[in-house]
Amino acid sequence: MIQKHPTGEWRIKCLVPDLPSPEAVIPYLYEMSDNRWYANFGPINGRFEEACKKLLTTDGQTCFVSSFSSATAAMEVVLVAKGLERGAKVLVPSLTFPATALAVIRSGYEPVLSDIDPDSYQLTPEIAKACLAKSGGEDIAAVVPVAPYGIPVDIDAWEDFQVATGVPVLVDAAAAFPVQKPGRTIPVVYSLHATKPFGIGEGGLVACGEPAVIEKARLLSNFGFEHYEIVTPGSNAKMGEYYAAVGLVQLARREELEARRAHLWQKYCDVFAGASDKVHIIGSAGYSGGYSGGTVAIPANLLIETKVPIQKVVDACITKSIQTRHWYLPPLHSQQAFASCLQLGDGEKGLPLVADRLMQHMTGLPFHNFLSDDDIEEVAAVVLKATI
Amino acid sequence: MIQKHPTGEWRIKCLVPDLPSPEAVIPYLYEMSDNRWYANFGPINGRFEEACKKLLTTDGQTCFVSSFSSATAAMEVVLVAKGLERGAKVLVPSLTFPATALAVIRSGYEPVLSDIDPDSYQLTPEIAKACLAKSGGEDIAAVVPVAPYGIPVDIDAWEDFQVATGVPVLVDAAAAFPVQKPGRTIPVVYSLHATKPFGIGEGGLVACGEPAVIEKARLLSNFGFEHYEIVTPGSNAKMGEYYAAVGLVQLARREELEARRAHLWQKYCDVFAGASDKVHIIGSAGYSGGYSGGTVAIPANLLIETKVPIQKVVDACITKSIQTRHWYLPPLHSQQAFASCLQLGDGEKGLPLVADRLMQHMTGLPFHNFLSDDDIEEVAAVVLKATI
Repeated sequence: MIQKHPTGEWRIKCLVPDLPSPEAVIPYLYEMSDNRWYANFGPINGRFEEACKKLLTTDGQTCFVSSFSSATAAMEVVLVAKGLERGAKVLVPSLTFPATALAVIRSGYEPVLSDIDPDSYQLTPEIAKACLAKSGGEDIAAVVPVAPYGIPVDIDAWEDFQVATGVPVLVDAAAAFPVQKPGRTIPVVYSLHATKPFGIGEGGLVACGEPAVIEKARLLSNFGFEHYEIVTPGSNAKMGEYYAAVGLVQLARREELEARRAHLWQKYCDVFAGASDKVHIIGSAGYSGGYSGGTVAIPANLLIETKVPIQKVVDACITKSIQTRHWYLPPLHSQQAFASCLQLGDGEKGLPLVADRLMQHMTGLPFHNFLSDDDIEEVAAVVLKATI
Repeated sequence: MIQKHPTGEWRIKCLVPDLPSPEAVIPYLYEMSDNRWYANFGPINGRFEEACKKLLTTDGQTCFVSSFSSATAAMEVVLVAKGLERGAKVLVPSLTFPATALAVIRSGYEPVLSDIDPDSYQLTPEIAKACLAKSGGEDIAAVVPVAPYGIPVDIDAWEDFQVATGVPVLVDAAAAFPVQKPGRTIPVVYSLHATKPFGIGEGGLVACGEPAVIEKARLLSNFGFEHYEIVTPGSNAKMGEYYAAVGLVQLARREELEARRAHLWQKYCDVFAGASDKVHIIGSAGYSGGYSGGTVAIPANLLIETKVPIQKVVDACITKSIQTRHWYLPPLHSQQAFASCLQLGDGEKGLPLVADRLMQHMTGLPFHNFLSDDDIEEVAAVVLKATI
């Protein structure tokens, strides 16, 4: 839920995209014009994919990468590439951006909603195993854990889960590029939407240590063409040359962007340091085994959980024209389109106590590269006053 | 089927995109950067949609327009917006770019393949009525006629069909922007892919005289969000600001582009004028009631049908390094992914005699804005020599 300003523009906005300057992108426009190649796996797209592959190849684990028109489109083609039966049940956490479950629906499957872990805010392998046990006759055909707010999932633990259960896994790491490590065999989907830490405007990536799933998804992103005939029904989900060009410029700016975000993150940690009993910063407890290394490990969003009802904080922020945002809320099980989905919650009570708790106690604070230290101090003062 | 050059680059290419110069687009990059708005219904997108609405509003018939990430994505959301039952049967012609049928599949429906009219190369209302009669127990829930090669369908005849049969119609006019007139109640889908006469790189539009279907498709293109909750399962199918910017520049170039294409078209008509018994130019017979007016009425592609087997022509072109392209062929009923689709053909014989005839006698010749008159004369000489 986005907090709308009652009358006009927010003085301190929650999120402002930081994309490259036009000057840096212009040379690529000339290259596209010289090539007369604007879409369909062009040369700039090829260089961008190669650079992303290099960035995501850590600890000597090679990965394969393909680019897409959006993370949602990428998720859809990867799900279709899995080749599950029509109507197959796919487990997703109830706390996620809705595209996770929508991609399941649009691929012809049915989302099943799980609770999340109260500490990591994630659908964990343990929760998934409990859901498999609980589902009884309702076979879960695949699991889509989410890296919420850009906090990586423990990819090695999910690889183990996949081996132990035989249930295929696909990770939605929309907000976690390039922090989330790709799986050895598990495909990981990233978003490059303008509002992400690494934004190019609109776009998605899929990375995986196994080339087959990437090749299949790529084929499906180009309608399913092979030798000028459709072999498997796909869609148009390719990334155009322009977005790939912006991506190349962003890659050159990556360390600078990360340093800025790391500074702002640390500032928030500092200003709330003395109030950990009242305000918990989500993701501040550090990262699990899913961190790709080589990049600065901070979440995409600055979310806090408070002891007091969060509405007190939100109201105080509105008074000072500070925008807040209820990211991923309400949880999916409270939304009209998912009301009929099977819910595998705690015991007999259905879903999901943790996400419902967050509904009352969590919000997102301003977190973008154009904030000053003074802005953060002001936000913190307003929040702290409201949490007394 | 695209003819690949045996060893390198074609001397005379079949299709070369004509997009704006970087200089014309650059001011919009600065505007996007100033706005820090790159996606999600930004101000440039709003101006582009408004301009398209104005262009497509002819004969005093107001239309409503929404933009999408591609024509395929647009077709998918409009089909979903129709709200047919899962597995509903949707009639499409077997002669079309495969995205028509793929969008049907990806929307949860089943394509049923029809034959085409031997003169217009279209699925006509008459053929559709015959298919409805033939289908027996297999209810056709919707019809998607195609404007093949950018040749408009008779939209008023389709409006009448819809009233007479009660079966909803949606037109795939991918290659016919802005030549195809939108329906009073029938939504029309256009592609703005780089290879189209009006190309922006990647993108699609839907236009219709009724606002409801456009609003629903637009909502579905933004996941199905309404007041921060998902009310109907959608996807991400929005057009970003950059493509809208290229669209605004192309609109300013439209008359110049059309004049160039009209000149080349006339040149082809002239060089083949004395050989109408051997070579028929598809679309040269003029337009039906679907022409929107206000624009130059020529098809998107230059296709010829010959008396002799077309392979003679293709081989002769290869010898001279002239690229040809078998657009929309093989027909869908001959492609692996659609082999199991119901086919409603002529009598008991299944599908489709006309498309099969084209497979043996039709090809696309070079047709793009960078051809010289000499190029066309050379192409014609090679073709005519092969058709003796």
